[in-house]
Amino acid sequence: MRRPPAHPEARARPVRRVALIAKLGPAEGPRLARELAAWLRGHAVEVIFDEETARALSEEDGLPAERLPAGLDLAIVAGGDGTLLRVARAAAPRGIPVLGVNFGSLGFLTELQPDEIYRGLEAVLDGAYRLEERQMLRVRYERAGHAAQEYLLLNDAVVTKGALARMIELLVFVDGEEIARYFSDGLIVATPTGSTAYNLSAGGPILDPRMRAFVIAPICPHTMTYRPLVVPESVTIEVRLGRAVEEVYLTLDGQIGLPFGASDRVRLEAHPDPVRLVRVTGRSFFEILRRKLRWGER
Amino acid sequence: MRRPPAHPEARARPVRRVALIAKLGPAEGPRLARELAAWLRGHAVEVIFDEETARALSEEDGLPAERLPAGLDLAIVAGGDGTLLRVARAAAPRGIPVLGVNFGSLGFLTELQPDEIYRGLEAVLDGAYRLEERQMLRVRYERAGHAAQEYLLLNDAVVTKGALARMIELLVFVDGEEIARYFSDGLIVATPTGSTAYNLSAGGPILDPRMRAFVIAPICPHTMTYRPLVVPESVTIEVRLGRAVEEVYLTLDGQIGLPFGASDRVRLEAHPDPVRLVRVTGRSFFEILRRKLRWGER
Amino acid sequence: MRRPPAHPEARARPVRRVALIAKLGPAEGPRLARELAAWLRGHAVEVIFDEETARALSEEDGLPAERLPAGLDLAIVAGGDGTLLRVARAAAPRGIPVLGVNFGSLGFLTELQPDEIYRGLEAVLDGAYRLEERQMLRVRYERAGHAAQEYLLLNDAVVTKGALARMIELLVFVDGEEIARYFSDGLIVATPTGSTAYNLSAGGPILDPRMRAFVIAPICPHTMTYRPLVVPESVTIEVRLGRAVEEVYLTLDGQIGLPFGASDRVRLEAHPDPVRLVRVTGRSFFEILRRKLRWGER
Amino acid sequence: MRRPPAHPEARARPVRRVALIAKLGPAEGPRLARELAAWLRGHAVEVIFDEETARALSEEDGLPAERLPAGLDLAIVAGGDGTLLRVARAAAPRGIPVLGVNFGSLGFLTELQPDEIYRGLEAVLDGAYRLEERQMLRVRYERAGHAAQEYLLLNDAVVTKGALARMIELLVFVDGEEIARYFSDGLIVATPTGSTAYNLSAGGPILDPRMRAFVIAPICPHTMTYRPLVVPESVTIEVRLGRAVEEVYLTLDGQIGLPFGASDRVRLEAHPDPVRLVRVTGRSFFEILRRKLRWGER
Repeated sequence: MRRPPAHPEARARPVRRVALIAKLGPAEGPRLARELAAWLRGHAVEVIFDEETARALSEEDGLPAERLPAGLDLAIVAGGDGTLLRVARAAAPRGIPVLGVNFGSLGFLTELQPDEIYRGLEAVLDGAYRLEERQMLRVRYERAGHAAQEYLLLNDAVVTKGALARMIELLVFVDGEEIARYFSDGLIVATPTGSTAYNLSAGGPILDPRMRAFVIAPICPHTMTYRPLVVPESVTIEVRLGRAVEEVYLTLDGQIGLPFGASDRVRLEAHPDPVRLVRVTGRSFFEILRRKLRWGER
Repeated sequence: MRRPPAHPEARARPVRRVALIAKLGPAEGPRLARELAAWLRGHAVEVIFDEETARALSEEDGLPAERLPAGLDLAIVAGGDGTLLRVARAAAPRGIPVLGVNFGSLGFLTELQPDEIYRGLEAVLDGAYRLEERQMLRVRYERAGHAAQEYLLLNDAVVTKGALARMIELLVFVDGEEIARYFSDGLIVATPTGSTAYNLSAGGPILDPRMRAFVIAPICPHTMTYRPLVVPESVTIEVRLGRAVEEVYLTLDGQIGLPFGASDRVRLEAHPDPVRLVRVTGRSFFEILRRKLRWGER
Repeated sequence: MRRPPAHPEARARPVRRVALIAKLGPAEGPRLARELAAWLRGHAVEVIFDEETARALSEEDGLPAERLPAGLDLAIVAGGDGTLLRVARAAAPRGIPVLGVNFGSLGFLTELQPDEIYRGLEAVLDGAYRLEERQMLRVRYERAGHAAQEYLLLNDAVVTKGALARMIELLVFVDGEEIARYFSDGLIVATPTGSTAYNLSAGGPILDPRMRAFVIAPICPHTMTYRPLVVPESVTIEVRLGRAVEEVYLTLDGQIGLPFGASDRVRLEAHPDPVRLVRVTGRSFFEILRRKLRWGER
Repeated sequence: MRRPPAHPEARARPVRRVALIAKLGPAEGPRLARELAAWLRGHAVEVIFDEETARALSEEDGLPAERLPAGLDLAIVAGGDGTLLRVARAAAPRGIPVLGVNFGSLGFLTELQPDEIYRGLEAVLDGAYRLEERQMLRVRYERAGHAAQEYLLLNDAVVTKGALARMIELLVFVDGEEIARYFSDGLIVATPTGSTAYNLSAGGPILDPRMRAFVIAPICPHTMTYRPLVVPESVTIEVRLGRAVEEVYLTLDGQIGLPFGASDRVRLEAHPDPVRLVRVTGRSFFEILRRKLRWGER
């Protein structure tokens, strides 16, 4: 594990108070989380827990993961990329840095492997880390006859048809201009972070995570001249359904599912606050690409 | 309209008795169908109707389209490719040639445009046509705890996930060998005829309709090394679900939807009887590609 | 032709002195160019010519297109996108806005159609235009044993193998990190403007021209896990040949061909000065996509 | 190493006389080839050599690999897929079965790994093998002003542009009908065997090696509506250049390069004699796909 030089801007604050969100399975999870909490407390760090972790550790006062208090110095996520996505949505608007420890295989978002935890945490306590900002997507979901709802995303917003529908017609507007009418299985709007997720399966490009941009990628378009499109972070994207079809859904980060009807609309734009991922290993994005996607293996 | 030379093999029999299946919309449909029926009767051809057409024309004795009697000399389909798919499934095993008249835009399967009907029918009555054989796919759907059901298809069998599921795991066997385990949105097994339908949206190749083969194409595979695969007509393909997921469906020709669960399996193989499409215009497959798909337009 | 509102920032200066670069074919070209020059002079605009246009019009003092003087208010290109690419490379570092008039079909870069010229020029003289900035790419070509040479590009830098070579091995570095080793027919590094050119044929995405980014797209990679990659304008890209192969070339904007050997290297980065394209019609990028690429036609 | 049951049809003849073509590098090659020859002679098999192998072993009477005598019972190729391609072109029309031993990594065409040689050869001498037929492609190359030349291929015929040319225009005819006019970097016509070679890099499908068909795949087509096309073995494909461009070449099996000019034409059709590959391991095509292409690895 290489250590990056302490990045001055990154040393925003000493780490005094952290949230621990552990999703580790019933077998080993509680023991690992308890050990981690003890280690942190032994280093004079106050630890709070999300509800689920609190329950598993018989700790009091667990908070819902989506309501982390604003003054935290760090959120530690012990689990997969999915758990980190969930925490990122709460941490970004509160300015809380997120450190992921992956107990599965190497993740795209999680920074540490299990055997790197304590060295990694020492580095963090020493201020020997940097913060990597990842652009987030703000989604405004306007359901006909309901108050608009807002969501924050780190990966992607996806409109898809049900298993039995043939194809759906989707109208996409960029800054008010209708740029495309897709007859397809659906549509993905992905952040740079989300470009290596579903977008890749749909034939979209990989975006360097430092990009400030979105990919608009149709899923199995009927029209052969459509190609994935990369637009700058400054635009507002709007998606509407051309014609009513049953069982069309809007899925956010693969975790939140919302019905999507002919009079509904979804607006997407960059969120002003990126999520800040704690980086201590010096592992680059391309190293992770190579390991996760076998990028470039012959 | 160029006429192909009368093909001796094709002149299997004089046309004495035809089925007319018209799906033409409520406005013009009944008039056009009535005209067509009158023209045929005026040429000493006996006409029978499917139920829906019979009702529209106030004729008696309409038959369900899927139960055409075996002795017919011809099935005339006035409608789009979808209606022709439906009729083909009934006509193929009974050896009834099918002539499609498209009242929409040019179809992949329908042979005649509205203004070509009567010239086309004259050619048919004169024996100046050829029969183009298109391979059909026999599907055996084995639902756990139910008797196996068989279907006949002209385009494709598709397994797809519901709108809210993430991805499904599909196991594909060719002649009993597990050849792939796809993590994807679904899977298409297409005939040469179906290669220009959904298969094309999923990145599959176009198969010349004279081919005797199937394309196996994953839909948005998570694994980047998978590519569409073309297998010969001699094989048996079996598809199973790796893990139970809700709302997975098997869709046949885009028209028949069947639930697909973890203990279900679907077997696909070539059907011995191809459907025989009546060709009178001399229009080639590549001409239709150019018009329908803008194949090759700059 | 809709007129955009006069954009205050865009009215950098009144148009007093323009260069006219006409590449219009021997038949109609000289007459059209002469007319255009006369119209400009009639509007009190001083006109200078590139060598070729000067020769065709029997004007004196033509300058090489790549040595336009810095004080010009405008360069008018009458010709195709190719001529505009050539002029852009000279105009960008001198801060000269470029107005393209396309005498072929609608171009991606040229703004006006032949019948829009005089209305368009009137708008320009009135200050009723806006300047659209397009990112340019600076290429540093280091040939072993030679002084490094610099080029400026608007579309793309492409490394390709000769017709007889099998495949080449290309090493790509981003900010000094080796990110990929491509076994392929070659590699494209494209600007957003160039994303709709060769990059598209190689399966790359379309970048909104407002983007500040580059696409790195391998040409027919042997390795199936490679995907086009979009990187931010802040990076330096370096390309080297893994092993000596005969007849490998570096091609810049499809117009400049340079030999590329095993000890050569090419470095690419954003040029600080974008080219500024004059926009008067209000036609959007997506409208041009639709017309040029049949983007989205069914 | 599983042994397939002796296939009656495959036991065409006992193996008495074999050709040994070894391309194994200067270090270990001669020793291995000498050992192999001695083993064969020790089993009462007469061995003849190609020129190169004969020279390396100081044996007399080496024959050019492309002039193997017709009466041989087997050609043993010790080397990579490239050497096997070369031998296949000579062996197919003479009806000589080919057994490949790969001294590199597992090959698509070679059957045995180095440590499997002697067990494999024993199986062959016992008749415990099967012959897998692979369709070959006959190429008729008609160069303006020259006598037509014929070639036999196992992988593909490729027309490609030189490194400096922009794009070429290729006209493709199937059975005399112009089916496409490709503006592209080139065109591949591949056999099922060749479908896993260059065709795959160009986005073409994988064809089961039992198929009797060809893939026609454009290389980086400028036109987005073109897709790889699979045609039956019964057709004749003709390729011509739309406009003269310098440095266009026709490459056969990646080994034979021929200039291709505006008045030249190339005709391709199935060769009546397939090559027969000796199979003893029972390893399936899909197993090789998995190992060579990482087919299906996550």
